[in-house]
Amino acid sequence: MITINLIGTGNVAWHLADHFAKVSGCELQQIAGRSKEKLQDFAPFTKNLVTISELRPANITIIAVSDKAIAAVASQIPYKHSLVVHTAGSMDMGILPQDRKGVFYPLQSFSKNDQVDFTKIPICIEASHEEDLQQLQKLATRITTKIHHLDSSQRKQAHLAAVFVNNFTNHCYTIAEEICNTENIPFELLHALLEKTAQKAVAHAPSDVQTGPAKRNDTTVINEHLDMLKKENYKSIYKTLTASIITHYGKKL
Amino acid sequence: MITINLIGTGNVAWHLADHFAKVSGCELQQIAGRSKEKLQDFAPFTKNLVTISELRPANITIIAVSDKAIAAVASQIPYKHSLVVHTAGSMDMGILPQDRKGVFYPLQSFSKNDQVDFTKIPICIEASHEEDLQQLQKLATRITTKIHHLDSSQRKQAHLAAVFVNNFTNHCYTIAEEICNTENIPFELLHALLEKTAQKAVAHAPSDVQTGPAKRNDTTVINEHLDMLKKENYKSIYKTLTASIITHYGKKL
Repeated sequence: MITINLIGTGNVAWHLADHFAKVSGCELQQIAGRSKEKLQDFAPFTKNLVTISELRPANITIIAVSDKAIAAVASQIPYKHSLVVHTAGSMDMGILPQDRKGVFYPLQSFSKNDQVDFTKIPICIEASHEEDLQQLQKLATRITTKIHHLDSSQRKQAHLAAVFVNNFTNHCYTIAEEICNTENIPFELLHALLEKTAQKAVAHAPSDVQTGPAKRNDTTVINEHLDMLKKENYKSIYKTLTASIITHYGKKL
Repeated sequence: MITINLIGTGNVAWHLADHFAKVSGCELQQIAGRSKEKLQDFAPFTKNLVTISELRPANITIIAVSDKAIAAVASQIPYKHSLVVHTAGSMDMGILPQDRKGVFYPLQSFSKNDQVDFTKIPICIEASHEEDLQQLQKLATRITTKIHHLDSSQRKQAHLAAVFVNNFTNHCYTIAEEICNTENIPFELLHALLEKTAQKAVAHAPSDVQTGPAKRNDTTVINEHLDMLKKENYKSIYKTLTASIITHYGKKL
């Protein structure tokens, strides 16, 4: 049995607590947060809702708070000599002041009210001590089969790649939705293409399935599209991505 | 029974022929193309592989060639008074010289060796005569339940939105894949996030599920990411998309 203390009341903390409460082999000992109100959302998972100063040692203490708060939260933990990890993609393991430290980073974008199937989510782990890495590995196997050992530098690169795969694509979807709304076209018209694009990138290499006016360097269509875009920031995105696609595939031709 | 002539030997033509050959209620009368070699790929669908000048009138003649070739191909069709349509998202219906003309645009990105489930693909139709629109509607129902009546102006906007949803997101995937390859991180690490991002955008509105450093205006992470990107075109994409996300959500706050 692995005992777990969880610190944080955001989306990552909630989804982790929800999962740990369901699976065997681990016990949510205490959950700590600053906001008493938000902590009440965690009542279904444990009776032991506390402040950070009330935490007692557990096998693993997981800090799932915003990037900027991690270091301050870690320094308030009232015990030493037990493993403390954070869950952030872009933060170095070294920001934790503890001797026994690590990272437990589920590579996914968590939103409230969105179901999470942890079995499909990769977990990236890292620890300062080999036996703690084994402990994190053991915990991760309770969640997923997709466990990756990445050091802080690799994890930051994975997080950067995740920004392209998630944040930037989602903004492209948002612009497409806005175009549809403005022109009285149902956004549902694009759902099949949107999903197929993701499926193709997973089934093939994305660089092998690029299509479109930029790939063909079709300046007639490209200029027409630039005329159709009214907002300067959308024009800039169109220009920048188109230029990059032309550079990318121009080299290969 | 709807008789169909198909002109073209590319991916769209192949997938349409493959589908028409399978479904009841329509007959592939003739398939025409310039390249005799490429036409042989269509032998499983009909024995009548011809040149454009050998085409005989059919209920619907579908031109599925590259955008730039449509007008020239249409002018070579050796009959008048029967319906001729093209399949392009970005081309006006008016480029067809025929009196009875229309558009039959399957909104999907077609690649060779990629399976296509037409029942999930929306078809956008348009015609210069009401009875021809009904004919196209009848043909489209043989393929999909997702039929949309869009005029040329709306179809061009849908095509522009499709560029954001498909071409630009796929380039973002490509950059992510390149980062992973360079850092010895398996791209599979990002597959779950990539697919979840698409699923979320379909289940919710994409603007409701935006996350990430740009949304939070987290300048520390943003600057670190810009330092990590070595290629100037990737830096530009990161900057432009980040600025647009900040503008978009800054306004809403």
